[in-house]
Amino acid sequence: MRALRTRKNREASGRFLAEGIRVVEALVDSGLRTRWVLTSSSLTDSRRGEALMAEVTRRGIPVRTVADELFASFAATEKPQGVIAVAEIPESSRRPFEAPPSRAVVLVLDAVQDPGNFGTLVRSAEALGAVGIVSLAGTVDPWNPKAVRAAAGSSFHVPILQERWHAASSMLREAGYAIVGASVDGLPASELRERRVALVVGNEGAGLSNEVRDSLDHSIGVPLRGRAESLNVAAAAAILLYELTR
Amino acid sequence: MRALRTRKNREASGRFLAEGIRVVEALVDSGLRTRWVLTSSSLTDSRRGEALMAEVTRRGIPVRTVADELFASFAATEKPQGVIAVAEIPESSRRPFEAPPSRAVVLVLDAVQDPGNFGTLVRSAEALGAVGIVSLAGTVDPWNPKAVRAAAGSSFHVPILQERWHAASSMLREAGYAIVGASVDGLPASELRERRVALVVGNEGAGLSNEVRDSLDHSIGVPLRGRAESLNVAAAAAILLYELTR
Repeated sequence: MRALRTRKNREASGRFLAEGIRVVEALVDSGLRTRWVLTSSSLTDSRRGEALMAEVTRRGIPVRTVADELFASFAATEKPQGVIAVAEIPESSRRPFEAPPSRAVVLVLDAVQDPGNFGTLVRSAEALGAVGIVSLAGTVDPWNPKAVRAAAGSSFHVPILQERWHAASSMLREAGYAIVGASVDGLPASELRERRVALVVGNEGAGLSNEVRDSLDHSIGVPLRGRAESLNVAAAAAILLYELTR
Repeated sequence: MRALRTRKNREASGRFLAEGIRVVEALVDSGLRTRWVLTSSSLTDSRRGEALMAEVTRRGIPVRTVADELFASFAATEKPQGVIAVAEIPESSRRPFEAPPSRAVVLVLDAVQDPGNFGTLVRSAEALGAVGIVSLAGTVDPWNPKAVRAAAGSSFHVPILQERWHAASSMLREAGYAIVGASVDGLPASELRERRVALVVGNEGAGLSNEVRDSLDHSIGVPLRGRAESLNVAAAAAILLYELTR
């Protein structure tokens, strides 16, 4: 379980960690294969913890329960909720992206570094109805434990494809998507008339990489006021996804 | 400097920490009083660091430079950028809220707990043209170092008032604001016809407190798809502020 804190070990084993009651509830409910669950002895003190434990047991998922202190040494959160699951990383498949409906949005992440931002982006993508996420090389691991927590279960519902830009952009163009970059000086999203949009958002500090910027069909952005130079990437993407999917 | 990591010491001394090149650039430029700056000896290896150091010196702000290793023991970030400033917390004043223009939005934070979310909310509020922030009792300290970093300079530009709900809601109503809560099942923001809106967003897990919920004029929300139960609070607020200020 401790080994799965590193990307290398997650990729080698094909497994990831999901921590917290809400996230493990969503995991168990998602159909992804959960290998086993570690719980603290106080998990079942709450009704919700008790219900989760019953559900995990009902599904025949192996459980190991340890004292709160030992549990805390496995937890990545400051106030552990008493449950961590080990589950299998779903296959990274092109299929959900290849035959989109007539109107569709894909969110492409280009070197987004902060796992909290990554997870928030996945959560917004699901909530606002995106077809899926493409995570480009240089982006934080989608299965980073903090990213999984921030996604609040959406990592288990939204297809996440890990791909390099060249292959991803070819695939998206073939499927009829316009490639649209998020940038501070882009067009208002409401003026974009494309029916299938792959929205690319960039790194927290540097924005879009040159490779991506050079192959965009359009740039869109949120008009800004005040002295703020930009929005946080997850805030900007939420607004743009909202405009593109409304 | 280490003492200022706790809210108690920040409130007792009236000082806070600003870490990182971009944040200290904004601080120095803001007119807030910067008491002194700690830099690492390698700060001036970059052009941007060198320019910041020159500006700090030009303004007569005392600087203490230490070796990178010692600097790292003061830094709160994993990859320190070599600069931390100690500055004075600006006065928490009602004035910016009391005579709003005919169309205005205030963002009210009700027990938002995560400093990263708080800072992102402040950044979005500035970028989208809100009049200011009201931070209710039970909310994370606006001057928490992580909140200040996540706000990317906006903490120094947007008025932040710390107030209890009863006093804050009376003040806002007297100034002509409708009190509008963000909730998953609220009206679409585009249907709201009020000209002055105080938008209240709640705690990451529990949402709005009962006290706030009971005194709302309206509830607004973002229509959701997929199986996501909600958006991250900073993503939801970004969309709602965008709708209310467009």
